[in-house]
Amino acid sequence: MMKKSEEGITVKKDENFSEWFTQLMIKSELADYSSVSGCIILRPGSYEIWEEIVKACDKLFKKINVKNAYFPLFIPESAFSKEQEHVKGFTPEVAWVTQAGNTKLNERLAVRPTSEAIMYESYSKWIRSWRDLPLLLNQWNNVVRWEFKHPVPFFRTREFLWNEMHTVFATEKEALSHGKKVMQAYNKITEELMALPGIYGRKTEKEKFAGAVFSEKMHHYLPNGKVIEGTCFHYDGQNFAKAYKIKFKDKNSKENFAYQNTHAISTRMLGTMFATHSDDKGLVIPPKLAINKIAIIPLKFERDKKILETAKKILKKLSKYSPILDDRLEVTPGYKFNEWELKGTPLRIEIGPRDLEQKQVIIVKRNDNQKIAVKIDSLEKEIPKLLNKIQKEMFDKAKKLLDENQEKTENKQELIRLIKNKKIVIAPLCDSQKCEEILKSDTSGAKALFIDSKRESIKNKRCIICNKPANYIVYIAKSY
Amino acid sequence: MMKKSEEGITVKKDENFSEWFTQLMIKSELADYSSVSGCIILRPGSYEIWEEIVKACDKLFKKINVKNAYFPLFIPESAFSKEQEHVKGFTPEVAWVTQAGNTKLNERLAVRPTSEAIMYESYSKWIRSWRDLPLLLNQWNNVVRWEFKHPVPFFRTREFLWNEMHTVFATEKEALSHGKKVMQAYNKITEELMALPGIYGRKTEKEKFAGAVFSEKMHHYLPNGKVIEGTCFHYDGQNFAKAYKIKFKDKNSKENFAYQNTHAISTRMLGTMFATHSDDKGLVIPPKLAINKIAIIPLKFERDKKILETAKKILKKLSKYSPILDDRLEVTPGYKFNEWELKGTPLRIEIGPRDLEQKQVIIVKRNDNQKIAVKIDSLEKEIPKLLNKIQKEMFDKAKKLLDENQEKTENKQELIRLIKNKKIVIAPLCDSQKCEEILKSDTSGAKALFIDSKRESIKNKRCIICNKPANYIVYIAKSY
Repeated sequence: MMKKSEEGITVKKDENFSEWFTQLMIKSELADYSSVSGCIILRPGSYEIWEEIVKACDKLFKKINVKNAYFPLFIPESAFSKEQEHVKGFTPEVAWVTQAGNTKLNERLAVRPTSEAIMYESYSKWIRSWRDLPLLLNQWNNVVRWEFKHPVPFFRTREFLWNEMHTVFATEKEALSHGKKVMQAYNKITEELMALPGIYGRKTEKEKFAGAVFSEKMHHYLPNGKVIEGTCFHYDGQNFAKAYKIKFKDKNSKENFAYQNTHAISTRMLGTMFATHSDDKGLVIPPKLAINKIAIIPLKFERDKKILETAKKILKKLSKYSPILDDRLEVTPGYKFNEWELKGTPLRIEIGPRDLEQKQVIIVKRNDNQKIAVKIDSLEKEIPKLLNKIQKEMFDKAKKLLDENQEKTENKQELIRLIKNKKIVIAPLCDSQKCEEILKSDTSGAKALFIDSKRESIKNKRCIICNKPANYIVYIAKSY
Repeated sequence: MMKKSEEGITVKKDENFSEWFTQLMIKSELADYSSVSGCIILRPGSYEIWEEIVKACDKLFKKINVKNAYFPLFIPESAFSKEQEHVKGFTPEVAWVTQAGNTKLNERLAVRPTSEAIMYESYSKWIRSWRDLPLLLNQWNNVVRWEFKHPVPFFRTREFLWNEMHTVFATEKEALSHGKKVMQAYNKITEELMALPGIYGRKTEKEKFAGAVFSEKMHHYLPNGKVIEGTCFHYDGQNFAKAYKIKFKDKNSKENFAYQNTHAISTRMLGTMFATHSDDKGLVIPPKLAINKIAIIPLKFERDKKILETAKKILKKLSKYSPILDDRLEVTPGYKFNEWELKGTPLRIEIGPRDLEQKQVIIVKRNDNQKIAVKIDSLEKEIPKLLNKIQKEMFDKAKKLLDENQEKTENKQELIRLIKNKKIVIAPLCDSQKCEEILKSDTSGAKALFIDSKRESIKNKRCIICNKPANYIVYIAKSY
């Protein structure tokens, strides 16, 4: 008989986050490395959660009239190069197809790092009149960005999955209003399903999307002190419309360039979710996204067949939570506890001889190891309550971590110290790109994440770098 | 006011299938060409149907314990080259990434034409013992095969979407049994949802999948006399297991190579479905896959607001069929009829002043233009019946076409004549690859599709090409 698992995670999250995360990914069977450097395999453990996220997004997107489509993977170099800022931003990371079979291609094909270039060519064909607007298309696909920085599973991989929503409007007002609705939809997904709080704000000019008028993003705080960008809203104004000739005749037959938005959520968010909630024992998955929400583990059932019978009855009764009955004989209960903890099942139900006598089971909550005796007759009533409770506790814990790790300062030395201590720092900055560069080098890599949207007064405030009058308050942290 | 549409299809399906199909694709807004030669855009009209197919497949796959995962898009050349037959079969069509940013890659990366090579490397890592089997993984993704033949939208495109299921078993028996279940699942999708009958059979050695022990496929007959391959079952035996070292210890600790299957359904099937059912007026979509199953068109409602009110009540009452209410004022009813016929909405509901008086509507079936008066009170009862009726009629019509276009012969001249007349020909053949090549050149491109599975007696039969004793009866036709 196998003993208590030696297959658990062997380092602590607090002590060595990066090794902990790698072990979590491999040992929980979320993902694996492949022979393509920088690309990972999404095993069912993570991919099926991604499918749930896609499903939930699609439901919300549908409500705001967005439709799904699919555009080609490849973008001819000439099409890719039409918007100057855009091409400058992406070419350093583009993977190029130059050959097919034995034939050298006449023109190189970019493997899409994002699809503006190929989609907007079609938009310019399809859009003629105000009747064709708004055009609200979305695609779920794979994109490739050949980063040369050290790859980190989920967080920085050369291929990732995402949605890219590219919407077109007759006016700026409509564009901004729809953009807001998309962000509300994303927030429902990240907060209510992924249990991830975040802070939202507009990028500085230096950090905005290549080709956008402005970029706004959600930001999430990771336990290693790094901030990762989440869902995003790029308002492109008429920039791309001019480059790709997306024009329409309005009701007065006047021709005008259209206004455009772009939004995305990617598999990077899976990394954020796994890293935020999980612990030294393994995965912790928010109940709303856990595929199997319960592991039922009968104890000493070899001796008393009533135990296994009862476990099977419970399995059936709770079927809508896709429970797993672990009735293996070749491993000990301890081994099973470890395994389902490693895999992040939100609830474990134990049932042994004494429980059976008392017509109860012991339920163990994965997120805090709390044990609760519940009468078998009350299970259908108690399970949804417990799952909701876990979901809320997970969000609250992450929110507390995010809140506790924000600090204000106007002093550069203090800023450097705080960044070293893994804080998100709120500080005044001027709008010179040079100061953003100095900020980065003096803090060994922290950057201005976004501009404070509460528009806190900057009267009398001075840039934390150059000491000239500040233009805004920014949030600063190290990031992926 | 716009007049009766001039935007309809201008050629007849019977007279110029290929131009008809292109117009159908563009004018029904199913798809569009892109600036990447040979790659098409799946617009919502076709993509949302693909999503329904994916959803339905996943539900059936889940019942036979298949899980979804995602593997990298790229395959290093060295990994790709491990199985000799496989690499020979695919390299002429591989798109190669040779450069990333400004850096020339050390090793070329194949854009996956299929994922055996990248998946089986991982399988060999993950599979150690009989406990790890069966391993039943599936992925939905995009693949690229750079065909140099003339591209045909949906049927032959350089990128397409599909599922590739790659399953691993301890024994041949288990492999064959699971393979059968997968094909039953596919049949449910193609027959019951897509309303597509087919004929199933095993490929000859010449036509089987590169690396397989045998390949079996479903075949569908198109109205232009060509046959297209549908869903497939490649039984790989231990071929790939030996090349990729997929070994396991059985219950007696004896090491053995595993047995493998591969299955797929692709967006090519969408082409088959659109081409089979549609007509000179446009798309005909099987009700079970139509996103909007009903178009409600109120007549003369400008004068009597009760008509529009009733139409809205019907819209609400039938909401589970995602009906569309076309209350545009700027186009005539005739224009609307044409448009919804072009887009393939299974049912049209007309409601005018006289209908209102009689508390009825006129329902028009898209597949045969039949008009039926239905009392408004009976709509909820009648609509599902009508939709089911259309679904059945569409399958039956396609089945009749398939059955009527099969002919037997043992005479080569007759074979050539029948192929010219767009028939599927059933004829005896020997197993020499040379005869298959002669067959192809003498018929201007027809090939042996598959071996008759009914195993009709070949005693005294002679190969239709070389006149030596036949080895089997084959189905012969031109194909995509």
